Amino acid sequence: MPTTSWLPLAADTGFSLHNLPYGIFSTPGRPRRVGVAIGDQILDLAAMDEAGLLELPARVLQAPSLNGLIRLGKPATQALRARLQALLSKEDSPLRGFPQFFVKQQAATLHMPLEIGDYTDFYSSIEHATNVGKMFRDPDNALLPNWRHLPVGYHGRASSIVLSGHPIRRPMGQVMPKGATSPVFQASARLDFELEMAMVIGKDSSLGEPVPIGEAEDYIFGLVLFNDWSARDIQQWEYVPLGPFLGKNFASSLSPWVVPLEALDPFRVVGPVQEPSVLPYLQAEGQRNFDIGLEVALQPSGGAETIISRSNFRYMYWNMAQQIAHHTVNGCNLRVGDLLASGTISGAEPGSYGSMLELSWAGSQPITLADGSQRSFLADGDTVAMRGLAEKDGIRVGFGEVRNEVVGRE
Amino acid sequence: MPTTSWLPLAADTGFSLHNLPYGIFSTPGRPRRVGVAIGDQILDLAAMDEAGLLELPARVLQAPSLNGLIRLGKPATQALRARLQALLSKEDSPLRGFPQFFVKQQAATLHMPLEIGDYTDFYSSIEHATNVGKMFRDPDNALLPNWRHLPVGYHGRASSIVLSGHPIRRPMGQVMPKGATSPVFQASARLDFELEMAMVIGKDSSLGEPVPIGEAEDYIFGLVLFNDWSARDIQQWEYVPLGPFLGKNFASSLSPWVVPLEALDPFRVVGPVQEPSVLPYLQAEGQRNFDIGLEVALQPSGGAETIISRSNFRYMYWNMAQQIAHHTVNGCNLRVGDLLASGTISGAEPGSYGSMLELSWAGSQPITLADGSQRSFLADGDTVAMRGLAEKDGIRVGFGEVRNEVVGRE
Repeated sequence: MPTTSWLPLAADTGFSLHNLPYGIFSTPGRPRRVGVAIGDQILDLAAMDEAGLLELPARVLQAPSLNGLIRLGKPATQALRARLQALLSKEDSPLRGFPQFFVKQQAATLHMPLEIGDYTDFYSSIEHATNVGKMFRDPDNALLPNWRHLPVGYHGRASSIVLSGHPIRRPMGQVMPKGATSPVFQASARLDFELEMAMVIGKDSSLGEPVPIGEAEDYIFGLVLFNDWSARDIQQWEYVPLGPFLGKNFASSLSPWVVPLEALDPFRVVGPVQEPSVLPYLQAEGQRNFDIGLEVALQPSGGAETIISRSNFRYMYWNMAQQIAHHTVNGCNLRVGDLLASGTISGAEPGSYGSMLELSWAGSQPITLADGSQRSFLADGDTVAMRGLAEKDGIRVGFGEVRNEVVGRE
Repeated sequence: MPTTSWLPLAADTGFSLHNLPYGIFSTPGRPRRVGVAIGDQILDLAAMDEAGLLELPARVLQAPSLNGLIRLGKPATQALRARLQALLSKEDSPLRGFPQFFVKQQAATLHMPLEIGDYTDFYSSIEHATNVGKMFRDPDNALLPNWRHLPVGYHGRASSIVLSGHPIRRPMGQVMPKGATSPVFQASARLDFELEMAMVIGKDSSLGEPVPIGEAEDYIFGLVLFNDWSARDIQQWEYVPLGPFLGKNFASSLSPWVVPLEALDPFRVVGPVQEPSVLPYLQAEGQRNFDIGLEVALQPSGGAETIISRSNFRYMYWNMAQQIAHHTVNGCNLRVGDLLASGTISGAEPGSYGSMLELSWAGSQPITLADGSQRSFLADGDTVAMRGLAEKDGIRVGFGEVRNEVVGRE
């Protein structure tokens, strides 16, 4: 694989030649289309296609979402990836000296890259599930009996998934105050984020047909950063017996660039040992986890940001192949553009927890920000930014960020 | 409103001039398009439009789903409904003597009428929730504390919603046998139906903006019959703490004809008294429930059917306006084509229970079919048919049926 580009790229860019993530962008006077992030620029695939530099159906690049491109399948998108890597590295590239193929990221507007069919959220970090179980159920039996046998998951709301940059309005809802006998209606007082990653499904499966675990990764097009915003007080009152609903579905947000799974191959690692051993349909050999450094920054209105958590996608107890095999084992079908999110990614140390709920231990241990202010949960005007970067042997693959500000009620 | 048609209609048809439900159909050589059921025929709206008899954008009728038509909004679809009622009743109708506008239902193929964005399932029958609580939790405290304060709901899977007629394959999955210490992987032994109705959302709401309860019904385009297939053994092992997942998402099915809300106006009734009183955002005055008779038939392979349940949509504790107001109170947005299902519709008497789980009381009291065979849950080869009919003062509005056969593993 070519490793250097004739383009001037900053040494610390996560949008390197190894990455080439896909997104949807527009520029003044020209509508939404497919682009690839490289350094601080966007390679305009629609313009390249018009110039005859790509051999893809035009409708998939002159499009308001990536779904058409993804639907072409891995052979086509892997060939496109190889072609782009060649064009960006060859000294005699036909792109060279033709600035019309490049748009400065700062000059473009990024858009939701996907038409999302269904959105599923897993609960696959053992540290997160244990922390939540300790706080809300039983410190001595924090994990429920099913947790080590299957990747627990639930369906989320697709309509309210927004892009990085979209303001998140604090939700109203029913909460049951401690010691009260009737619920009250109020703005959530325990607004939280959840640090997650989400896989974008790249291939339809058939209703009634399970995806064998050995084929599961063929169904992953790529990954994004994902913030599963949560209102803990609303969630706690509503969630029995059917799970989270209004405590979650007011918003989730994702990063604009979809990093292809192929770009993450150098960062494969073996996941945690699973004990007791899992049923055969969930047994996955080899390196199924990914070493991707993650961080959460909290920036109060008008203030400087504080990094409040450093975690890693490699901590996941259940890997993506297992999640797909489980999700489909009953015949449930996946569709191109579906999002399957990991669940909150927490590490073993308090500084690696992926939610305010855990970082402040349900509000009992507020965290202190750089400006001296304290937080148990999120305040109006707070901006939450999540960033991801995989780095190894000089190879850098970045996810950019998902960054959203909390806005209060009017 | 005109009450009689120049068309010869059977006296007992549910597809009367008062109904005029919308669906998507195709005929040999002509693709999917919008039609309206009338008696045993389909009025071909696409053909009428071509002949200049309707004044609608052509793309909404020559379409593989109703979404475009629905998106025109209630003023347009109510005007269309009035126009169709006039054309089907006026003695000098331009439809009369022109058989090309009519297709025999038996000669047409019906298709999934909607592009479903998100699917939500409520749990709004107090009899059903009480029965389930008695069986699985505590007979003396069957309803959980939140149940009378909010319409409990959860997100379901949109990808696996199929039309009446589609075979339902018995799902495989993890179950925890009674007394066992490890789960086993097997075909579900407790396959069940759930008798429900689902509303089709007819108008987008804005993310961040609650729908006030007084406006909620403006967001309902119409209703269908809905079977929320369930695998009780899979569900019971997986559902804590995040709710049902693989126990539900292998399939749900719906009836092909969407009955407009306007057709149900004559059947409005006052719902059950809600005690304790609900929070102001859930307070709905007037007749918000609908008197729609429902029945479930079970037909073994090669045998005669037995009506195993007779229920009514009027039994719902939480009405549709309350469900919409609750769903959006936190800012969650609705989109045209979303499905919001009622949850299992059970009445007070055992013969009105809406699931096998309740009818056989978790398998402890098997029901006997007309052929003498017994059922605790569904057997391979069983066909489940749900039918709905509203009837009053000579007005009949039928939903047809949702009918699917259970097929075993190969």
